[in-house]
Amino acid sequence: MHAYVGTILRINLTEKTIKCEPLDVETAKKFIGGRGLGSYLLSQEIDPEIDALSPENKVFITTGPLTGTTVPTGGRYMVITKSPLTGTIASSNSGGFWGPELKNAGYDIVVLEGKAEKPVYISIKDDQVEIKDAAHLWGMKVNETTDTLLEEFGDPKARVLCIGPAGENLSPMAAIMNERYRAAGRSGVGAVVGSKNVKAIVVRGSGKVKIADEEKMKAFVKDAMKKIRENGVTGQGLPTYGTAVLVNIINESGVLPTRNFQTGVFADAEAISGETLAAEYLVKKDPCYRCPIACGRYTKADEMEGGGPEYETIWCYGSDCGINDMKAIIKANHLCNEYGLDTITAGATIACAMELFEKGYIKPEEVDGPELTWGNAEAIIEWTKKMGTSEGFGAKLAQGSYRLAESYGVPEYSMTVKKQELPAYDPRGIQGHGVQYATSNRGGCHVRGYLISPEILGLPEKLDRFSLEGKPLWAKIFQDLTASIDASGMCLFTSFALGAGDYADLLSAAWGVEVTAEDVLTAGDRIYNLERIFNLKAGLTKADDTLPKRLLEEPMPEGPSKGWVHKLDELLPKYYEVRGWDADGVPTAEKRKELGLE
Amino acid sequence: MHAYVGTILRINLTEKTIKCEPLDVETAKKFIGGRGLGSYLLSQEIDPEIDALSPENKVFITTGPLTGTTVPTGGRYMVITKSPLTGTIASSNSGGFWGPELKNAGYDIVVLEGKAEKPVYISIKDDQVEIKDAAHLWGMKVNETTDTLLEEFGDPKARVLCIGPAGENLSPMAAIMNERYRAAGRSGVGAVVGSKNVKAIVVRGSGKVKIADEEKMKAFVKDAMKKIRENGVTGQGLPTYGTAVLVNIINESGVLPTRNFQTGVFADAEAISGETLAAEYLVKKDPCYRCPIACGRYTKADEMEGGGPEYETIWCYGSDCGINDMKAIIKANHLCNEYGLDTITAGATIACAMELFEKGYIKPEEVDGPELTWGNAEAIIEWTKKMGTSEGFGAKLAQGSYRLAESYGVPEYSMTVKKQELPAYDPRGIQGHGVQYATSNRGGCHVRGYLISPEILGLPEKLDRFSLEGKPLWAKIFQDLTASIDASGMCLFTSFALGAGDYADLLSAAWGVEVTAEDVLTAGDRIYNLERIFNLKAGLTKADDTLPKRLLEEPMPEGPSKGWVHKLDELLPKYYEVRGWDADGVPTAEKRKELGLE
Repeated sequence: MHAYVGTILRINLTEKTIKCEPLDVETAKKFIGGRGLGSYLLSQEIDPEIDALSPENKVFITTGPLTGTTVPTGGRYMVITKSPLTGTIASSNSGGFWGPELKNAGYDIVVLEGKAEKPVYISIKDDQVEIKDAAHLWGMKVNETTDTLLEEFGDPKARVLCIGPAGENLSPMAAIMNERYRAAGRSGVGAVVGSKNVKAIVVRGSGKVKIADEEKMKAFVKDAMKKIRENGVTGQGLPTYGTAVLVNIINESGVLPTRNFQTGVFADAEAISGETLAAEYLVKKDPCYRCPIACGRYTKADEMEGGGPEYETIWCYGSDCGINDMKAIIKANHLCNEYGLDTITAGATIACAMELFEKGYIKPEEVDGPELTWGNAEAIIEWTKKMGTSEGFGAKLAQGSYRLAESYGVPEYSMTVKKQELPAYDPRGIQGHGVQYATSNRGGCHVRGYLISPEILGLPEKLDRFSLEGKPLWAKIFQDLTASIDASGMCLFTSFALGAGDYADLLSAAWGVEVTAEDVLTAGDRIYNLERIFNLKAGLTKADDTLPKRLLEEPMPEGPSKGWVHKLDELLPKYYEVRGWDADGVPTAEKRKELGLE
Repeated sequence: MHAYVGTILRINLTEKTIKCEPLDVETAKKFIGGRGLGSYLLSQEIDPEIDALSPENKVFITTGPLTGTTVPTGGRYMVITKSPLTGTIASSNSGGFWGPELKNAGYDIVVLEGKAEKPVYISIKDDQVEIKDAAHLWGMKVNETTDTLLEEFGDPKARVLCIGPAGENLSPMAAIMNERYRAAGRSGVGAVVGSKNVKAIVVRGSGKVKIADEEKMKAFVKDAMKKIRENGVTGQGLPTYGTAVLVNIINESGVLPTRNFQTGVFADAEAISGETLAAEYLVKKDPCYRCPIACGRYTKADEMEGGGPEYETIWCYGSDCGINDMKAIIKANHLCNEYGLDTITAGATIACAMELFEKGYIKPEEVDGPELTWGNAEAIIEWTKKMGTSEGFGAKLAQGSYRLAESYGVPEYSMTVKKQELPAYDPRGIQGHGVQYATSNRGGCHVRGYLISPEILGLPEKLDRFSLEGKPLWAKIFQDLTASIDASGMCLFTSFALGAGDYADLLSAAWGVEVTAEDVLTAGDRIYNLERIFNLKAGLTKADDTLPKRLLEEPMPEGPSKGWVHKLDELLPKYYEVRGWDADGVPTAEKRKELGLE
């Protein structure tokens, strides 16, 4: 007994075949599961140099060993594939209930390979798995798709994962949605699914995940719950305001990206804060599977309602576009969910377009919709729709900010790392966080090593956010721990309250073998290096480990981070060193051997 | 503008008429709304001496002025009617989303009067209101009723309130259920609805509640949210473990009623604790409308899943029946929700039956089901089903513990006040809480003045739980404040963090007039006295303000409350005095005049 179901469901869309394969449990444990095991299998099965949108790419939808168990937040699944946005390995993570349902149906992993001739969807009811015609679903938005499939499936408790029109249109900002408004959001994973002509996967399972040691697990779960409850972030801030609690906090540190990162202070932050969201638009909290934190919000703005917005959506559609209209942000959020768009890339791309418009690169005459001016609430709504359908100038935006800015010859106005839009923290005022931005294996990302935790929130200890001292090592440790948490099937947010030892305890109860904190960190290191090796084989180099020029050269113009640039030059070599990589950022033979990587 | 919609929907089932009447806003403000206004209207419209199950009784389903607004927890509705269990005025409160939906449809209150010839249900879609045939629904359990009605109504976002088989069978422990597993649980309000041949009310509204001062409201809501977040109970304990967090706390004070209140210490408390629930059976948190606390749980035990169990269910089916099997308790809870039973009265009645069986009053030969022995997990499940359908000996149990024990000539084994089962706190170790038990206007009840807050939890300040000093006044103030909170449409749980001044602020923003903390307490006093006067007219006397003999005469046998009895004799005269009542517990003419009551 080991908490894996033990079965991989492999669906070849070209051949129209469905196969069950046994999971190699020893390999699984080496990479834990989820992001780790998925990355390993992808590395084994595809050539990293292929075109992400070709039939040769594969999609691994993976659970972790703790997915579907009794651990708090144990409801995550991940999507691992080659990204059409970044060209790197992608691993996007989502919550809700789809992951546990897949395990209850009897599968740890679903693999999509090849390409269907015509649109299809996958129906999974325990061991009844079918590839079904989806002609009638193609073109539908996410809620309509979900309603239609739930009715066809005949069980309202089934869980629907699907893409929206953006995924069908192969937009590299297309997300995979589950349960209407949960998203495996980043890196264009929805476009890869769309490229295979797959619209959805509906799943319903009657089984139950079994683990090795029930008694041990009960005790560890109680302990973890207690720590989560007693922690200020997981026990109070996130439960009350959701992730949007960060708007005011980050603005007060002068690192809330505003008008495409031109400054880190937004005068109207309060109007788009978590406090305002709670006071005006919240309908209810909307928690994921077994989550004691319940950061999820369900909101309503006029006729539009649904999950979110998260802090990351509020920032990019808000301060980054100079928008102080919370209602417009909520509507843009719901539209992203309907079209299946990654909100960060979508909002940040509009922000980039606004700067290109302000600076005269984008001409008024080529814009077939609302003016791309800072603070134009109508613009964020209408351009989101047009990105969602790749209509007119929206088709250009739907390629993301890098390709947009590059088409005007000024890629430096795209606030991206590896062509993926940076999240809501200006690294000029958070030096450690900037290193992890530059080195994240999936490009600009905040959830691959959330140094905001020590550098701003003071967890597990408060670091000086401007200091460079020790930051490379902090970045490495956070990246490694995060990789293991993602691989386990738990939510990263637990890490405000839990440490490597806690995850080790939970895994040891699940697996029935002793697991130490060191084992957890080593597995994370292994996963991180595996991803890095994939990216190097895909053609990325040291030159890709960088930040937008603005953040390296233009000092922050105002506020509590005034005068700072990010000092990546000083930090990067030290980071490579603590990683055990050579001066070109390549894992040394010694490091590979230590981790058991070829 | 004043936060009321301004319309009462009156449905006469005998006459088959549907009428809209204007709400008298000045009267509404005097009694705030919800429990207050409903009690006023009931007092005006029915003779308190009538039979609760006769067509002369009426049911007022009322919202408060804050229901459906942006205030945290503003989603409550209340049911006011004469109770078939207690013969007193009943006012049962429920959360979820039904109340806001009713207001969005354009009504503050629904009145059911008369009796339909055949089973019917009420369909409300904004101003389209219909009385519809419910022959096909009669006999259905709650989930099936809900599924059927949602399909017939044709809008999955509609909200369904209904009764289960228990209400149809006129069991005085029948609840009104909404959204499957939220309950206006106590005092048999479901039987009154059943006596009118009404199975359900489905509602969907497209409107939005308007208030007087949006800007003021935003500021007050932000402030209230902050206080709720920063409070240990509303910000941490309830969010993490739900109400079941109390199991260990109350057991550690030696006041967890065990084996029908024979003792206050349950050796297996940990096995039925909130910590165990979270570690083993929780599927997700399941919050009500705009609630930052999110105490609601959604759990699964084998094939049964749904909302709850609450602390009150765990206690009465757990320690009170000598049961340490959490899975059985969860199943009993889900069965209560399916049959539409009040879990407290249902569980406590089984506990009483177990003691009657132990003492030889109930003979083995009359029991057509599992043996009624302490700790028999099968018994709590099977007898719940039989109470739900009034089958065999279950029909006798379905009358509640008072009528059961009385039928054997030993009513003293029924742990009730005014024939309603006491909740989960043995008053021998909590003297103030005992006074409010004895004087609660709806009989044995913990949510009419929750002195557990100061006496056990230390909020707003810690009182010596064994001391009598000042307790009558504490009871009065808590009862009054509670009445106003119930009347407002907010959840009582906010009162761990908020005080009378906070509710006054929220009401003043809603109404657009100045409201003080004193106004709030006076309105509560008015409501409390109004209810009292109803009960006196219904025939209740001072003699009904008492506690079960056991709690007054048998010292607690063990644990941290060992040796104590409840000292009601000393406390009651002082309570009457602080209330402004005469020595017989009748509100004086002066008091009535002061409160503007006839």
